[in-house]
Amino acid sequence: MSRKTIILPKGKRARGGSPWIFSNEIRMDEAAKAIAPGTVINVRGDDGRAFGTGYFNPKSLIAVRLLAEECDVVIDAEFFAARLTRALALRDAVYDRPFYRLFHAEGDGVPGLVIDRFDDTLTVQIGTAGMEKQQTAILMALDKVLKPKNVILRGDAPNRALEGLDSYVKTARGEAKRIAVEENGVRYIADLQEGQKTGWYYDQRDNRAFIARLAKGKSVLDAYSYTGGFGIAAAKAGAKEVVCLDSSAPALALAEESARANSVTIQAVKADVFEELERLKKAGETFDIVLTDPPPFVKSKKDLEPGAKAYRKLARLAADVTAPGGFLSIASCSHNIPPERFAVECGQGLLRAGRRAALIHQSGAGVDHPVHPLLPESAYLKSLVYALD
Amino acid sequence: MSRKTIILPKGKRARGGSPWIFSNEIRMDEAAKAIAPGTVINVRGDDGRAFGTGYFNPKSLIAVRLLAEECDVVIDAEFFAARLTRALALRDAVYDRPFYRLFHAEGDGVPGLVIDRFDDTLTVQIGTAGMEKQQTAILMALDKVLKPKNVILRGDAPNRALEGLDSYVKTARGEAKRIAVEENGVRYIADLQEGQKTGWYYDQRDNRAFIARLAKGKSVLDAYSYTGGFGIAAAKAGAKEVVCLDSSAPALALAEESARANSVTIQAVKADVFEELERLKKAGETFDIVLTDPPPFVKSKKDLEPGAKAYRKLARLAADVTAPGGFLSIASCSHNIPPERFAVECGQGLLRAGRRAALIHQSGAGVDHPVHPLLPESAYLKSLVYALD
Repeated sequence: MSRKTIILPKGKRARGGSPWIFSNEIRMDEAAKAIAPGTVINVRGDDGRAFGTGYFNPKSLIAVRLLAEECDVVIDAEFFAARLTRALALRDAVYDRPFYRLFHAEGDGVPGLVIDRFDDTLTVQIGTAGMEKQQTAILMALDKVLKPKNVILRGDAPNRALEGLDSYVKTARGEAKRIAVEENGVRYIADLQEGQKTGWYYDQRDNRAFIARLAKGKSVLDAYSYTGGFGIAAAKAGAKEVVCLDSSAPALALAEESARANSVTIQAVKADVFEELERLKKAGETFDIVLTDPPPFVKSKKDLEPGAKAYRKLARLAADVTAPGGFLSIASCSHNIPPERFAVECGQGLLRAGRRAALIHQSGAGVDHPVHPLLPESAYLKSLVYALD
Repeated sequence: MSRKTIILPKGKRARGGSPWIFSNEIRMDEAAKAIAPGTVINVRGDDGRAFGTGYFNPKSLIAVRLLAEECDVVIDAEFFAARLTRALALRDAVYDRPFYRLFHAEGDGVPGLVIDRFDDTLTVQIGTAGMEKQQTAILMALDKVLKPKNVILRGDAPNRALEGLDSYVKTARGEAKRIAVEENGVRYIADLQEGQKTGWYYDQRDNRAFIARLAKGKSVLDAYSYTGGFGIAAAKAGAKEVVCLDSSAPALALAEESARANSVTIQAVKADVFEELERLKKAGETFDIVLTDPPPFVKSKKDLEPGAKAYRKLARLAADVTAPGGFLSIASCSHNIPPERFAVECGQGLLRAGRRAALIHQSGAGVDHPVHPLLPESAYLKSLVYALD
């Protein structure tokens, strides 16, 4: 069976080198529309020029995601094994222990595939119809490269619906649910079946280490703490008091369990973050370090203005409960707010709080979340740390 | 003598909260034009609203630089001592040893003033007429806060000419020229009188540490090495071969001296970087790690397009001499190229070199180079590290 071809009319390609090709860049004729979602295709110019091998989804705004720069590249277990081997070598060059994001989609050369590693247990997130079709090949490749004991398929990300995919959580190899994550010398408990996303947020690893360096002897408020990633790191680094604030009781229960596993104490507070910050402000309570790592406020482009306003408000309220001479960290995991806009909103929030501040740290995710060189917007995580007067 | 007032007509202020007020935002009448460059003034709206205390230069595009949010703040040794004390506390919270940028202009609340600390020796960079007038007060404040043994005034930055200032290098306290800098456990020799800027580039400290983590057993090309900041860190971390490439013989001589001080070996090559990269490519030579930290290619806004092209070309040539599976770091210290544009140019350079790459690290300067929250463009340093297939 010969491979189908998607045609890229001359002058339509908006961004050379990007692994994404949008539906308005291709010739979306009847033949194209008839191709099943997720089919591996070649992409060629109308002059026959090869643009590469990718997979196609006529229902998606991102119609093609490229897997290779040449046409007719065979996409099979061997292909995935080669990409996984390369990704593994990169992590091995940087990390001492087998706890990291093993594979980060476009950044590692395979759009739609995300894998987190917890020693001999993997969680696999498949985000597109194209990768859903390759599930067997991916699992074979993982067996070949890593021989994982346990593999959990987390097919429950909401954006799968955009690709016409259903939602599931399945165990493909072995059996695993709650496991221990080692990060920056701290031991956390994660729930790989029911926790958010893949069960753990490795993306904040370096930022947790940065905060831990400042935490000795300090009081710390970890807002949107989830399972306590920042708070427990701070406690282990010698913080004198740590409050983990989140609206999820199961997340806080895991945070408390992780705290015990590290022989440290945290105070878990179940509340809405905005409401609790208002309450703390009224009560005149302050913390030496305030951390806020909220869920994405800008989930799509149309949410930009209200989302930007929410970040501004969060910065203002968080500054209000930051002690003089304290530190304030604000993060955004929204793809859809550019870094410079996010920084301006946070700066305006501090201004409205009447606080002079120095922005001392701007960063994103760690090395295990590589970014495609020509898809800079996939660097979704933005973390800002301020020193407040 | 009453303080003069600069008037900000309603609706003219482009960016609330920024410490810079441009000449087209103020009422530039004859009275304003008659104020001597560098004079401390109040800024008020035409309705009398206080915008703060700053200093004025009728000859500069940035007409006012704000020092405080209130009017009539006294600018004297005590004012500078308070700002210095705050800056020092921030560094003390993060650094173990007294080697860092002690004061970083707007980021630390005083536009136009930059101070680097090398234990008991300081280099002071005054960039504006306003700060030039405060030289005595600044020195008194330094004596009060730090009692430095040696203070060198580096009044030789080219942008001083924009402020109508002359060029000088003077010793204000003690006597110092060549000193030892400690950074990431490496000892470097710096020339505080004749070296570039303040004599040492602390801004790359964290990026040097990042590269050192990857360097063990690797061959390293440090292009635009200056006095060997990256190269010697890599050598000390166990690199098997380090070439420092620069066009300055005195810089390379210092690099060789620093290498000896750390009991490591580097090979110093005096050449133009673009020419040497072309030569290495023709000779088929590659390195496991290639570092490029060039002087600013975009010195002013009008240089953006040629400068952007130069970064693209540098990325391409540097990729050409990076071994398969190697790492490539490209930095820009140009204020005038936005981070996203710089990243795109580097990405395009890699594409033209035909290299698949993962962007694994995006960062700027360290904590000792804080940024004003509402002046994000002052985060001039952009460093990108790629893993190449």
